[in-house]
Amino acid sequence: MKKPLVALVLAAGEGSRFRSETNKVLHPLLGTSLLGLVLDTVLALKPDKIVVVTGRGSEDVCRHAAPWGVDFAFQKERRGTGHAVLAAKSALRAAGAGDVLVVPGDLPLLRPAALKTLIARHRRRGNAATVLSAVVGDPSGFGRIVRAADGRVRIIEDADAEAATRAIPEVNTAVYVFDAGELGKALPKLTQANARGEYYLSDVIGILSAARKSVDVVPTDESGDIRQVNTRYDLGPVVDVLRDRKVRELSGKGVTVLNPASTWIDLDVDIGPESVIYPSVVIEGATTIGRAARIYPGAHLIGSRLGDRVTVFSSTVIEGATIEDGVTVGPFARLRPRTILRAGAHVGNFVEMKNTDFGRGAKAGHLSYLGDSEVQEEVNIGAGTITCNYDGVRKNRTIIEAGAFIGSGTQLVAPVRVGRGAYVAAGSVITKDVSPDALAVARGRQFEKPEWAKRRREQQAAEKRAKD
Amino acid sequence: MKKPLVALVLAAGEGSRFRSETNKVLHPLLGTSLLGLVLDTVLALKPDKIVVVTGRGSEDVCRHAAPWGVDFAFQKERRGTGHAVLAAKSALRAAGAGDVLVVPGDLPLLRPAALKTLIARHRRRGNAATVLSAVVGDPSGFGRIVRAADGRVRIIEDADAEAATRAIPEVNTAVYVFDAGELGKALPKLTQANARGEYYLSDVIGILSAARKSVDVVPTDESGDIRQVNTRYDLGPVVDVLRDRKVRELSGKGVTVLNPASTWIDLDVDIGPESVIYPSVVIEGATTIGRAARIYPGAHLIGSRLGDRVTVFSSTVIEGATIEDGVTVGPFARLRPRTILRAGAHVGNFVEMKNTDFGRGAKAGHLSYLGDSEVQEEVNIGAGTITCNYDGVRKNRTIIEAGAFIGSGTQLVAPVRVGRGAYVAAGSVITKDVSPDALAVARGRQFEKPEWAKRRREQQAAEKRAKD
Amino acid sequence: MKKPLVALVLAAGEGSRFRSETNKVLHPLLGTSLLGLVLDTVLALKPDKIVVVTGRGSEDVCRHAAPWGVDFAFQKERRGTGHAVLAAKSALRAAGAGDVLVVPGDLPLLRPAALKTLIARHRRRGNAATVLSAVVGDPSGFGRIVRAADGRVRIIEDADAEAATRAIPEVNTAVYVFDAGELGKALPKLTQANARGEYYLSDVIGILSAARKSVDVVPTDESGDIRQVNTRYDLGPVVDVLRDRKVRELSGKGVTVLNPASTWIDLDVDIGPESVIYPSVVIEGATTIGRAARIYPGAHLIGSRLGDRVTVFSSTVIEGATIEDGVTVGPFARLRPRTILRAGAHVGNFVEMKNTDFGRGAKAGHLSYLGDSEVQEEVNIGAGTITCNYDGVRKNRTIIEAGAFIGSGTQLVAPVRVGRGAYVAAGSVITKDVSPDALAVARGRQFEKPEWAKRRREQQAAEKRAKD
Repeated sequence: MKKPLVALVLAAGEGSRFRSETNKVLHPLLGTSLLGLVLDTVLALKPDKIVVVTGRGSEDVCRHAAPWGVDFAFQKERRGTGHAVLAAKSALRAAGAGDVLVVPGDLPLLRPAALKTLIARHRRRGNAATVLSAVVGDPSGFGRIVRAADGRVRIIEDADAEAATRAIPEVNTAVYVFDAGELGKALPKLTQANARGEYYLSDVIGILSAARKSVDVVPTDESGDIRQVNTRYDLGPVVDVLRDRKVRELSGKGVTVLNPASTWIDLDVDIGPESVIYPSVVIEGATTIGRAARIYPGAHLIGSRLGDRVTVFSSTVIEGATIEDGVTVGPFARLRPRTILRAGAHVGNFVEMKNTDFGRGAKAGHLSYLGDSEVQEEVNIGAGTITCNYDGVRKNRTIIEAGAFIGSGTQLVAPVRVGRGAYVAAGSVITKDVSPDALAVARGRQFEKPEWAKRRREQQAAEKRAKD
Repeated sequence: MKKPLVALVLAAGEGSRFRSETNKVLHPLLGTSLLGLVLDTVLALKPDKIVVVTGRGSEDVCRHAAPWGVDFAFQKERRGTGHAVLAAKSALRAAGAGDVLVVPGDLPLLRPAALKTLIARHRRRGNAATVLSAVVGDPSGFGRIVRAADGRVRIIEDADAEAATRAIPEVNTAVYVFDAGELGKALPKLTQANARGEYYLSDVIGILSAARKSVDVVPTDESGDIRQVNTRYDLGPVVDVLRDRKVRELSGKGVTVLNPASTWIDLDVDIGPESVIYPSVVIEGATTIGRAARIYPGAHLIGSRLGDRVTVFSSTVIEGATIEDGVTVGPFARLRPRTILRAGAHVGNFVEMKNTDFGRGAKAGHLSYLGDSEVQEEVNIGAGTITCNYDGVRKNRTIIEAGAFIGSGTQLVAPVRVGRGAYVAAGSVITKDVSPDALAVARGRQFEKPEWAKRRREQQAAEKRAKD
Repeated sequence: MKKPLVALVLAAGEGSRFRSETNKVLHPLLGTSLLGLVLDTVLALKPDKIVVVTGRGSEDVCRHAAPWGVDFAFQKERRGTGHAVLAAKSALRAAGAGDVLVVPGDLPLLRPAALKTLIARHRRRGNAATVLSAVVGDPSGFGRIVRAADGRVRIIEDADAEAATRAIPEVNTAVYVFDAGELGKALPKLTQANARGEYYLSDVIGILSAARKSVDVVPTDESGDIRQVNTRYDLGPVVDVLRDRKVRELSGKGVTVLNPASTWIDLDVDIGPESVIYPSVVIEGATTIGRAARIYPGAHLIGSRLGDRVTVFSSTVIEGATIEDGVTVGPFARLRPRTILRAGAHVGNFVEMKNTDFGRGAKAGHLSYLGDSEVQEEVNIGAGTITCNYDGVRKNRTIIEAGAFIGSGTQLVAPVRVGRGAYVAAGSVITKDVSPDALAVARGRQFEKPEWAKRRREQQAAEKRAKD
């Protein structure tokens, strides 16, 4: 029978160096958060239970972590990581005769493989405790792994370390697997006799090792993944690593990201093969893009679905929209939520759409605003067309039936319907429905005042002479 | 008399790790391709003949490489690099008593100087074969150079290498110069007795060296240039090097590129001194820019010609256009193909032009679309001017003669002509030609319904009260 | 009593490798210049006097450096750094019994701490001269520090160095503190007997040391700050360091800069805590941004003031504008100088404003141009509204009083005033003032030609058949 595994994620730190009202581990990045990254990693191990230990701001943490289906434990006072684990007592009890995995909530680059290896070793050897260590270039800030000649190990925190200890390059990643029983027996032995006056979870290692329990300290192969985030500045390099992983993943699928350094793609984004992402593109949320798409420079996509062979020209903003196969949109287009561009549609520059169903093969090439509207297949929207959807009180709908032609510079005062195949003359203000196949005109007639411009120029010149 | 030199470029690899329907070496980058970069480098040596050996997808390769004036050989089955060279038999015959340079098609950072040095050494020493090697940090994937104590050398491919061999840091770049006669005699001796069951060209080195022919292995001074592209991910670092070279070239000419990391400039682009390129700019194709230009953030230029002292404000897209000296354009302008902005013209924000000749000193400051039009010198185009160039069937031309003033919010229903010095009143729909110097008006007259808005508000408030 | 300190900044170099008509040290970067950065650093020491030594192009240097309140000395001929210091003779005299700090004008990364440490040491030891040296990876181009066995030091310029000397990794940063009296006595002993035929200031060190004066060469802790800018290409890495420092400073204040590599923030910019700067943003000049702002991708802000909780959506350009708390603006908005958006206002896409006071809670959501206008509180500007502020001769004002509603597609022909609470019907051309609370209409009436579009299609089809 499989031994139970309970995972504790320690997220009670305040992260005061972030200077934020938001809990540090909730800080958003690449469509997730520090905590979200750690929860994804832990969830990949399929533990029997995940418990997030929170402290101040715990309501936000609970709301944020709920979708992962985790439990919570509350550490009322901040008295160290050992104290945090004690706060999850009932979770420990649940672990019974199993193992407890402890992972800090601010180690966002950690990957499941490292944890799997650690747990496998822990179980293979029947350890009381197994610690993930790392050999790093700059160990300052980390607890150091002190290996005695007799094989016993202990961990000395940075604040308590003397010069010789500080020089040790092997550090504690603060990731542990414990035998639940051994952990339960060791925790009450922790003291606050240290520089920070806290109960250190890391002291459990020394306690167990001194008691000649089987304790293993296993250096990770991926020491680059051991990067704590203490300040907002620290986010930069972490995000760089995550973005590089994302580009590697997409490249492997056949996506070309031309200039990764200037491109931002949230981790949940999915892109199909043969698609090309130009520089300075930002893609956020759970956006999906099909095969052979072209996303040109400066496009900003948020939570949208794009089909195959979609071309998004430069500096186009698309949020909460659905774009079917073969559509071209932009440059300088802006699609707002609940907009659908159906297959083969074309939307050009300086065009905004909101809550609009834009039909197959329909075209809106220039300088238009379509809001709360239904535009059926093969409609042609002339430049400068505006749906007047707001009358100062409510939003009204515009319906343009299949094959209609809307001349340039037209205002469609909603609610209004333009019938199938109708033609609206350029510069019209349409306030009444237009019959199918009809021509609708609503504009002034042209007349001339001959020589008016010439006389005006002469008069202006005369005025100017008089002034000078 | 000069010895003939025939260059073989091996481009028959499938690049399956690219997951692309396009041949790997044709993958576009910075306005050229992997193969294009290699052909430029080889062409710089002025060989007597260049033969590109292609395999699957050879039609695309031939079409792509044709402009370099090269010959082609076809390798029908993929049976190794030695087999690829055999496929170019007639090319070898053409080399006669000369030399054969072999260059892989996926070594895009290689520069002519390295090849020149290699060939010079080969000829000076009268070698049978001269190999370009490189000492690299991570030799995995490359063939290793094995130098025996007796001076003989051979190359062991990665797949065939044992641990000791794998540790050798000197690798085969797969760039060779052969005496054509010696190569011809050695090729039939190749066997498939290796891990991949292929005819390795690299085995020729061992064969010649074992036969005590003069074989030289020369490490390159520029080992950073030895970077093979096997996956799309590999393109990133290669493109970074090429972009850095481009920025260095432009800087040397007096161009300032403010943030190279976020800037993309195709290799064919030319920019004059004292010009400044802001961050997040993308310049593609054979674009030329004159002296003292300013290209502001987010501009995207494609295959266009810009004169001196041109200012392109932020987020402006220019494709296939010609811009004369002293023009200012943008932000948020979009110039489409066959647009000319003549000297001193000004185009402002949210303005699109297509196939338009825009005259000296003319101005279109805001929210306009000019398509298929001729705008003569010193014309003023008011905000919201639209040429209605499409009637649902065909595109028609608009001509605005010199010095005319087009009031804001005007639709010009093409075909139409506004005469010299004429004035079109704001909000007009112009369907007939306007006489020179005339005022043209085509709009409704203004009237008021006093207190209407007040009564409406009261009524709406009453309705709301009734509802609540 | 405190010893006087005179600082000499040497800015007479021509920087010919910049290929620029502008003096190298005046080259703009991050809102300042190479010289500006050095002057800021020197000014932080609060010296008694700062003298900038200039050569060719000195007028520009004087104009540029004037705001720092410095004096100038002119080096008429370029005969070396020693000669440059001699040009500042009167400054030296002013130093009297004090010290002279010499700093090159092209060492932009130097920070005050390094200079403070240097001066403190110089004074503590009562030195005749104290030199700041640096141990660098690539010493080429720098003078080398040659320390003799007997403790004497001298500096050998790169051009004069032999191979053994060239290998010395400790270089002269060209930053010195001199006892003014000792400097005055040593300068006349300089000769031109060297590779460049110049008077080297660095020779003063050898002269003083040979005379057994107390000379100290102190390696800096921050050798990364010793980076000379000789070419435009050299600016890249220098700007990268400065941008990293800026991001670090902002992060420490609680600002999140999502992708530093693609973000450009001038050094004078100030941003409040909890604000988030998205990728590809450019912020220039003395821009200030309040708390909890969101600046989305591709925004370009220049010399503007933004309040708290301001949201700037993607690809928005703001120059010389003031934006009050809680405003949302963009995407694709463009605010030009002398625009004020008052608290809670909303400006949407494809909207341009110039010299406009836009009232509290007012809205202009789409495709509009407001120039030279006053828009009072709670006004609603419909899509496609244009102020016709230019009549071909002068700019005129538009005033829209509180609570008015401007229907879409309206032209307001200035000068014109829309009264409080009035309603302008969509598509109107308003040429006369609108009374408060009135409805104003100025457009054509709608009529239909039944079946017109159908007949037209049939006719077109017939024509097409005839043609084929």
